[in-house]
Amino acid sequence: MSNTFGTKFRLTTFGESHGIAIGGVVDGCPAGLKFDKQLIDSDMQRRHIGTDATTRQERDQVEILSGILNELTLGTPIAFIIKNEDTRSDDYSSLTELYRPGHADYTYEMRYGRRDPRGGGRASGRETAARVAAGAIAKMVLRDKAIRINASLQESHTPPANDSVGGIITCTISGVPAGIGDPVFNKLNARLAASMMSIPSAIGFEMGAGFAATKMQGSEFRDNWNDDFSTRTNHCGGIQGGISNGMPITFRVAFHPVTTISQPTECIDRNGILHTIVPEGRHDRNHLPRTVVVVEAMAALTIVDFII
Amino acid sequence: MSNTFGTKFRLTTFGESHGIAIGGVVDGCPAGLKFDKQLIDSDMQRRHIGTDATTRQERDQVEILSGILNELTLGTPIAFIIKNEDTRSDDYSSLTELYRPGHADYTYEMRYGRRDPRGGGRASGRETAARVAAGAIAKMVLRDKAIRINASLQESHTPPANDSVGGIITCTISGVPAGIGDPVFNKLNARLAASMMSIPSAIGFEMGAGFAATKMQGSEFRDNWNDDFSTRTNHCGGIQGGISNGMPITFRVAFHPVTTISQPTECIDRNGILHTIVPEGRHDRNHLPRTVVVVEAMAALTIVDFII
Amino acid sequence: MSNTFGTKFRLTTFGESHGIAIGGVVDGCPAGLKFDKQLIDSDMQRRHIGTDATTRQERDQVEILSGILNELTLGTPIAFIIKNEDTRSDDYSSLTELYRPGHADYTYEMRYGRRDPRGGGRASGRETAARVAAGAIAKMVLRDKAIRINASLQESHTPPANDSVGGIITCTISGVPAGIGDPVFNKLNARLAASMMSIPSAIGFEMGAGFAATKMQGSEFRDNWNDDFSTRTNHCGGIQGGISNGMPITFRVAFHPVTTISQPTECIDRNGILHTIVPEGRHDRNHLPRTVVVVEAMAALTIVDFII
Amino acid sequence: MSNTFGTKFRLTTFGESHGIAIGGVVDGCPAGLKFDKQLIDSDMQRRHIGTDATTRQERDQVEILSGILNELTLGTPIAFIIKNEDTRSDDYSSLTELYRPGHADYTYEMRYGRRDPRGGGRASGRETAARVAAGAIAKMVLRDKAIRINASLQESHTPPANDSVGGIITCTISGVPAGIGDPVFNKLNARLAASMMSIPSAIGFEMGAGFAATKMQGSEFRDNWNDDFSTRTNHCGGIQGGISNGMPITFRVAFHPVTTISQPTECIDRNGILHTIVPEGRHDRNHLPRTVVVVEAMAALTIVDFII
Repeated sequence: MSNTFGTKFRLTTFGESHGIAIGGVVDGCPAGLKFDKQLIDSDMQRRHIGTDATTRQERDQVEILSGILNELTLGTPIAFIIKNEDTRSDDYSSLTELYRPGHADYTYEMRYGRRDPRGGGRASGRETAARVAAGAIAKMVLRDKAIRINASLQESHTPPANDSVGGIITCTISGVPAGIGDPVFNKLNARLAASMMSIPSAIGFEMGAGFAATKMQGSEFRDNWNDDFSTRTNHCGGIQGGISNGMPITFRVAFHPVTTISQPTECIDRNGILHTIVPEGRHDRNHLPRTVVVVEAMAALTIVDFII
Repeated sequence: MSNTFGTKFRLTTFGESHGIAIGGVVDGCPAGLKFDKQLIDSDMQRRHIGTDATTRQERDQVEILSGILNELTLGTPIAFIIKNEDTRSDDYSSLTELYRPGHADYTYEMRYGRRDPRGGGRASGRETAARVAAGAIAKMVLRDKAIRINASLQESHTPPANDSVGGIITCTISGVPAGIGDPVFNKLNARLAASMMSIPSAIGFEMGAGFAATKMQGSEFRDNWNDDFSTRTNHCGGIQGGISNGMPITFRVAFHPVTTISQPTECIDRNGILHTIVPEGRHDRNHLPRTVVVVEAMAALTIVDFII
Repeated sequence: MSNTFGTKFRLTTFGESHGIAIGGVVDGCPAGLKFDKQLIDSDMQRRHIGTDATTRQERDQVEILSGILNELTLGTPIAFIIKNEDTRSDDYSSLTELYRPGHADYTYEMRYGRRDPRGGGRASGRETAARVAAGAIAKMVLRDKAIRINASLQESHTPPANDSVGGIITCTISGVPAGIGDPVFNKLNARLAASMMSIPSAIGFEMGAGFAATKMQGSEFRDNWNDDFSTRTNHCGGIQGGISNGMPITFRVAFHPVTTISQPTECIDRNGILHTIVPEGRHDRNHLPRTVVVVEAMAALTIVDFII
Repeated sequence: MSNTFGTKFRLTTFGESHGIAIGGVVDGCPAGLKFDKQLIDSDMQRRHIGTDATTRQERDQVEILSGILNELTLGTPIAFIIKNEDTRSDDYSSLTELYRPGHADYTYEMRYGRRDPRGGGRASGRETAARVAAGAIAKMVLRDKAIRINASLQESHTPPANDSVGGIITCTISGVPAGIGDPVFNKLNARLAASMMSIPSAIGFEMGAGFAATKMQGSEFRDNWNDDFSTRTNHCGGIQGGISNGMPITFRVAFHPVTTISQPTECIDRNGILHTIVPEGRHDRNHLPRTVVVVEAMAALTIVDFII
């Protein structure tokens, strides 16, 4: 199902950007885990790094409703909600009848026959807040197994006045022992690709040497052995045949610029009539800095599902 | 599960490269579909395009065991087998105790404690034959809905003597109406990414403008409307918010060179001792031409799962 | 996963009996459905029918957090919470170290290494409140398709002072057209059996003539045709080969008495020492009347998953 | 999906009764298991116990196609086929246009728009042969964990000339440690109920004291402790809150008589015209003896999915 991620450590998210609350349910978290609420709070804070001063002030308080007793997980579902505050839904009243270019307005209506136009509704980047909260819970499990995830900006641009930029985020997962993953369809790299491409505005994914590997020959590409089963190079990105080989798992995710900018924009209505508007609302010109922790969260949710 | 792909139109594959047979079971194919065995046969033939003259002659006869009556599908599982012939398992006897660089030998043993060393066993590219057969069945369903899938080589290299090359395959899916796909985690682009990255030696994936989009600004990237709801550009690759917008769906897949080449190769044994061998067996120096139909098959299996 | 029911119309529930809240997320509800909050409220009220005057007063206000706009469903997840009020957790402090007979105290600890002892935690019958709320949403979908579900008491007993009773609930689903269900493993009757046996204290299930059919001969049991494709008898309970035949679907569920009673009770501690206590807390002596709407809810959730 | 059972140890079956072959794929069997082909063969033989001398002689040779090397499982899918022999499809030619009473003829056509009329096609009891073969593989896994499954006839009848009988099969699973199962929706008893009700002609299921428990009071029903955590009675059938308590797991399954008998039978055609025929073909008058091993197989497949 579309709103559920994972099979063993499973996250189900819900909520529209300007509804009462967004949130999620984590099912499958092992019992007896020390619950570190501060890790959730600090990752939620990282989701605001670099946000334009003028944009929405989300305090994003994560409230835990279940699954924890005496700061230990019970093994039962951990439900959490994040109330939506500081919403300015009036900003979007003009968009009820219009489809913006580069947005999911039109596709949601084709899929469901309707949508919540306020703040992008379910298609809003705000939905990633639930991913970050659940990703922090996944990190608690991984930390106990000495698995660390670090994402950072690899290619970043400075946005000009009134326009937006994209970029590339690189991520390294260290501490994954050899033998994690599955062959054939459920390859660890395939699952990482899906999880990364599910992040709003992701448009490309590559493991290890990635697209550059297409210009190598086999004699150069193949990662030769050291006598401790590590390899001298890591062109494959730590995964062979869908299964980890014990080297760091490395990948990159390309993000396109967000498509709402404070410039005249041609929208289309249901009758095919074009209307030029200047979008109101608050929009990031560079969403890359705050997406770094989302990449980490999705990596954590992917790995934990193979590890437990 | 690792050997099952899809949720509604579901393929389960089985078989080792040098076992009795490989094959698959397709569950969820609609009833009453005209079964076009020739489409399977011709796609199986395409999987041999460009194969080195010296490599394995797989006749790859697909035998249908169930699910068809009077050339129409029954709606019940369609099982098929492809017998393994012309296997030269002796070529691999020296590899039983060695892990080759760049292969899944080591990772399979870390995952399962054992592996079938003959011809790569389950990790062999031969496994893709079952994907191609099932992909052809998916294409039969899509053809009835006027959906066409075309993959082709975008970047190809001529292999030097005794070395292998990678490249890029581009794919276009046309005829998908707007509104196909799901939001959040099960985005159509996320599922395409997973299906492509599950192909042996895939190492990168990008939709539409892909990595080049990271250097665009929002005003350039966003795909502006025509008044028939098509867009003037297609930088997003036909998918917005995880759901098709009616434009052609376009993506590219990067493949690294295969890592078995006819050159001295340092393998490692279970004790961490390095051994230099020259691999026997038959190996493609350029696997890209025969991978084109595999890309199409996985695209077909992905799309059909959303369409039915 | 254990806390998710269904595949297309999918309910995930959460919450401990004496935690902050219980609740659920319904994913897969069709868009554009008129949302009838009153149906939820009235079914929640039915869950209190026949409750002993002395037992917990649950107001059970269902708060909808997402998925609804202007009283229509959006097609996105519908999350709801029911706050826990009037909890008397102190009643259970003596049970932290004891396992009661006939309860899940011991089995939860064997499964998870811990449990929430307050009010039965996740194993409490209170968890069924989330099923009833979600079942009412399923009924909204079914009502539009003229499918009706009616459960009632078939065998009921009057509890003596200080003891509890079981009984049988019968259920009829009318309006299901022929052709609903799946063959082999996912038979409609198999799914109904699982959904009913998942209700706390369910201990038996039978379709149509049920156990009495074991004493019939084939000539008596088989349901002969009328010329409108209805059948003169309905011994099979409206399902053949796992698929509905258009007749009313009928089944019965047997429930054992609840095992907490206000009599001296031998509990066991972690060291295997038996302790006689008289349980505090509030317990139903006859839970059958309030279980009727739970049977309906699970039937609705089962059928809707095949219908949409 | 309808033709797949289980989530971790997963069986997918295929095949029509009079097609080329039936069979299955077991995915998720642990690697390194000693593969005991004789156990499969002997369980396949038990599926013929008590068969009328005049009925179909199925040799039912199970051919393994994959997943085994040197008599050890590889951890990869184990595919097997059972060729259909001694089919007398002409016996069924008269049934192509008729729906028999008590059969899935009509419901399959309502579901799929067509069916294979030869020998019941996919709805034939022959499909259970694949369950028995896979169940024997599951038993190999369970045997290593000292878990034993024993089913036997509890209520059996002698069929009169030209009529069929039903009955009750009882089953005990011993050696399951406490703590196996899941709470809420995926209760072990709920999964057992579904697996048993998926067997052709199953019509009732009860755990432990079953329907008789509805007449007990709580003071009688509750299973009191011994000081070794066993219980003095086992009314609950070894499962509490969906999780095993270490006692033997006991349940009973009610089966109705098969509905094809060698007596004049009123069938209906697509136009609603009734036709009286005397069925040809070979039919069991008492299918209970050969169903015993099917009950065991489904119990094994259910338990192994929780155990591994």
